[in-house]
Amino acid sequence: MKTLILSINDIRDIISEIGLNSLMDELIIRMERAIFEFDLDKTLVPAREGFEYHEPHSGLLEWMPLLQIGEQVTMKVVSYHPSNPAVQNIPTIVSSIGTFDVTNGHLVALADATFLTSFRTGAASAVASKVLGNPKSRTIGIIGCGAQAVTQLHALSRIFEFDHGLVYDVDPDASESMSKRAGFTDMEIEISTPEEILHYSDILCTTTSVGKGEGPVFNHTNHNPWLHINAVGSDFPGKFELPVSLLKKSLVCPDFLLQARKEGECQQLRGDEIGPDMVHLVQNRQKYYDARNQLSVFDSTGWAFEDKVAFDMFTEYAAKLDLGTSIQIESTISEDPKNPYEFINEVILQNC
Amino acid sequence: MKTLILSINDIRDIISEIGLNSLMDELIIRMERAIFEFDLDKTLVPAREGFEYHEPHSGLLEWMPLLQIGEQVTMKVVSYHPSNPAVQNIPTIVSSIGTFDVTNGHLVALADATFLTSFRTGAASAVASKVLGNPKSRTIGIIGCGAQAVTQLHALSRIFEFDHGLVYDVDPDASESMSKRAGFTDMEIEISTPEEILHYSDILCTTTSVGKGEGPVFNHTNHNPWLHINAVGSDFPGKFELPVSLLKKSLVCPDFLLQARKEGECQQLRGDEIGPDMVHLVQNRQKYYDARNQLSVFDSTGWAFEDKVAFDMFTEYAAKLDLGTSIQIESTISEDPKNPYEFINEVILQNC
Repeated sequence: MKTLILSINDIRDIISEIGLNSLMDELIIRMERAIFEFDLDKTLVPAREGFEYHEPHSGLLEWMPLLQIGEQVTMKVVSYHPSNPAVQNIPTIVSSIGTFDVTNGHLVALADATFLTSFRTGAASAVASKVLGNPKSRTIGIIGCGAQAVTQLHALSRIFEFDHGLVYDVDPDASESMSKRAGFTDMEIEISTPEEILHYSDILCTTTSVGKGEGPVFNHTNHNPWLHINAVGSDFPGKFELPVSLLKKSLVCPDFLLQARKEGECQQLRGDEIGPDMVHLVQNRQKYYDARNQLSVFDSTGWAFEDKVAFDMFTEYAAKLDLGTSIQIESTISEDPKNPYEFINEVILQNC
Repeated sequence: MKTLILSINDIRDIISEIGLNSLMDELIIRMERAIFEFDLDKTLVPAREGFEYHEPHSGLLEWMPLLQIGEQVTMKVVSYHPSNPAVQNIPTIVSSIGTFDVTNGHLVALADATFLTSFRTGAASAVASKVLGNPKSRTIGIIGCGAQAVTQLHALSRIFEFDHGLVYDVDPDASESMSKRAGFTDMEIEISTPEEILHYSDILCTTTSVGKGEGPVFNHTNHNPWLHINAVGSDFPGKFELPVSLLKKSLVCPDFLLQARKEGECQQLRGDEIGPDMVHLVQNRQKYYDARNQLSVFDSTGWAFEDKVAFDMFTEYAAKLDLGTSIQIESTISEDPKNPYEFINEVILQNC
């Protein structure tokens, strides 16, 4: 019973073989289908929990378990350290994910989830925006130009035909480097102000590291009546990006209601001000057809089910392409499961 | 930023080099010292949570996070599938453990915790029994002869000079094989009944897989007035091994009160019937000197802090002996942490 380690180098090899656009397209389709078929009686997802700390830097480390009854448990551990890029030159979000066989508790696979989190967060916005965004959208706005901004631009550009993107970050270096980082999308990227972005965007993604109590990240001024916002940055109690006045005018769809009320934009709303969650939305998309012409918000806090879908796709490709490293990690090699010392050489055991 | 994988083969190499007895002796000393120095302001341990399920077999998969402020997070995932030995010929408890750097969220190391759980559970009973057990103990009793029984016998035989062990299991194969499995301790092992074991033992360990609501595993009959019991099997709501009448007469010391009240023998007691926890006990051992001559119970549900101590010992030896496999798992290799696609070859990215 070995464990498959799927490293970032294996993921790179999968991308080389399959193509980044093909993988994003496939993930969007898989996620849409999985959410359409989502069954509360088959999948248990508790709201994530975690440790918040301030030594040596402010940080957050959370665990996101998911049970598919009779099949597997997925456990993502995801950390959030806004000091990472400046202090250690690594991403703000660092993460890994494991799956466990529920027939016996074995750790089947462990993979990078730093890339995967970013990739699936893009795909999730694409799935929500396919229902809520205006199909004629030509302008995408980005507020907050970190790693998540790149996958938002990528995923949404696979669904909409954008002419250009308007971007803003409190850090000018971040906004200036966006055109290079998103160059592969062939989109024209212009640096703008939050107010202009709100004014001109058809679709807007907020992907900031705004601090607790420091939001909103823009003021509620004029916008297109059909504006759809993917609010991605809000993922912690007290942290949110959008003006409450704008939320109250919007159809607000959380990815995962339980978590969004604790950590997302939904913190700012009463229960009766919150719209359908992502599952209800995708399973009843006809009902929300008019939302394409109205103000809407996807409150994306990050749902463990999205991780599972992305993880499944990459592990399936790893199996197909014979990638990854298999290691016998757990002590399950003995002939006698009642003897925890059987794996030790008999001679060593007698002379212990 | 690579991740160290410490497999069961690496652990075997450590045991070959250092010796099983030396490692157990060292772990007992380390655990005693770590508990003596335990500081609630520096270490956060929530009660574990998990999924319980009945498809395809009854099972439980739990996560046990621990934060040492400013240092690291330890996350053990531990599963419990009583059908494992018969159905899959692997241990009931299968587990793995990871540590994360709190400066950046990086998964520093991942190791087998199947062996480690069993090993540290033995050491924990030794630590508690050093305070609560009678130093002149000559007879050890074991009720429930699975994998945990072996490490209980091992650890306690490093502290007490037992003449012989009395063992019982509902499965005769399990009790019969105990003398072979515990042969390395040079102790004489006799198969007995629960009543005889209770009657003759100086120290008793209960290590059963009794079902919810099916306890206690023996009746409250005569016993030595100085009997000390390590109750190891109780680790789930509704599951317990000891008669409540015996508990009410005992000094009951939980490893971790919050968890023991939820999952341990302490479920059967009111708050005021519960004695000091393991930390209080070890930090105030003089105060409990008389307990050596009185009935006492160590309610061992399994505390994440014990795992951390054992994990640290094995990873320190792995470093000394240059063991383990280092793999770059996470996507933290880019020059630009704001670009989640930078690790992808430029040519592939342009032709994506």
